[in-house]
Amino acid sequence: MRLRFHRSLDDLNEKLLVMAGMAEQAIQRAVEAYRVRDLSICDLVDRGEVAINRIEREIDQMALDLLAMEQPMAIDLRFTLAVIKINADLERVGDSARNISDRVRDLQRLPQVEVPVDIPRMGSLATGMVRKSIQAFIEADADMAESVLTMDDNVDKLNSLAHTSVLAMMKEKPEFASQALHVLMIARSLERVADHATNVAEDVIFWVRGADVRHHVREADSAVAGESISPN
Amino acid sequence: MRLRFHRSLDDLNEKLLVMAGMAEQAIQRAVEAYRVRDLSICDLVDRGEVAINRIEREIDQMALDLLAMEQPMAIDLRFTLAVIKINADLERVGDSARNISDRVRDLQRLPQVEVPVDIPRMGSLATGMVRKSIQAFIEADADMAESVLTMDDNVDKLNSLAHTSVLAMMKEKPEFASQALHVLMIARSLERVADHATNVAEDVIFWVRGADVRHHVREADSAVAGESISPN
Repeated sequence: MRLRFHRSLDDLNEKLLVMAGMAEQAIQRAVEAYRVRDLSICDLVDRGEVAINRIEREIDQMALDLLAMEQPMAIDLRFTLAVIKINADLERVGDSARNISDRVRDLQRLPQVEVPVDIPRMGSLATGMVRKSIQAFIEADADMAESVLTMDDNVDKLNSLAHTSVLAMMKEKPEFASQALHVLMIARSLERVADHATNVAEDVIFWVRGADVRHHVREADSAVAGESISPN
Repeated sequence: MRLRFHRSLDDLNEKLLVMAGMAEQAIQRAVEAYRVRDLSICDLVDRGEVAINRIEREIDQMALDLLAMEQPMAIDLRFTLAVIKINADLERVGDSARNISDRVRDLQRLPQVEVPVDIPRMGSLATGMVRKSIQAFIEADADMAESVLTMDDNVDKLNSLAHTSVLAMMKEKPEFASQALHVLMIARSLERVADHATNVAEDVIFWVRGADVRHHVREADSAVAGESISPN
């Protein structure tokens, strides 16, 4: 029984890592599609999004089965809930990749023009945050998860810089406003990816630190029960 | 024991409705702040966001306690997981309200100019979707939840229209590009609210229809177990 339980937890963990890898790759591909203006990479991103959506449902089902059949306690319960929440964020990273890919297609239909926003750098920061938040999850490392929250400030700064540069360009060369706007929207999609990584990091912190708290009071279950289901 | 269990479920349900009401109100206020350019309403939105964040954590804790102590089965388990996911989406509706409020502040610092985007209409559609998705949740009505998915198309259309109008304005009057961009970002925040309502609706469908499926096979638990924990 416990063996099956731990195998289920391991399976869930492994599947979430596959999902995280796919989400990270989706963003890298979308940024690459932008950088080299290659629509065949956009197709890959779009197909990848379908696969990500499917795996999201599979993970939800696995987590649900695990909760229903194994009724995990304390830290394992928190772990399972963290997986469910992280899963939802990773799926939306896939959506962001798809949005970027749509914008690259729009850009391709317009005269090419240099827009002064460093999309590859923002992309690399955002995927770095996704990677690190998942690393923190794998290692159950709340401190590492906290470092992701700091990284988010850098992405916000770059995004704010993008906003300023794009506005200046729009005023100077209004005939290229469409291109500038598409690039700004790509920057915002990357900012959303960073937000999702931040959410993942917060879930890791809640799981690890919350679990620690629970762990200490496990011996005094009934007291905790009385305390934590107290009225609002 | 069952009595306490149902009281916990009811408490959780009730708290989520409070949260939903706060999220809906946050958007209405943010749109009103935009409409009448009143920064004191922005302050209300900002304070509301803090309250929404707090209640999000309370709901998560209640759900966790319920899972740990009552170990709900089948439909009640799906309900609890739906609450956890809906909770996360409602919190992000609060974030969107905050983003709108920030943009209204930015706009206030600039010369006022008419931007041809019907923000009040988009706001009313988006809050309507939030309301209906929660209504579907209250009534466990998957058909009603599906109607929310259709409403999302209208918001997307309005957003795409906003994009076109704003671009035209930027080309014609580049000196007002900043104002136009802020308004477009408000439109996009409302589109995100609509996306979150769509997520809520999808969770309701998963809960209601998935629960139905589970209900039918509950008698044959072991067969289901073998099937649904199968390898990836």
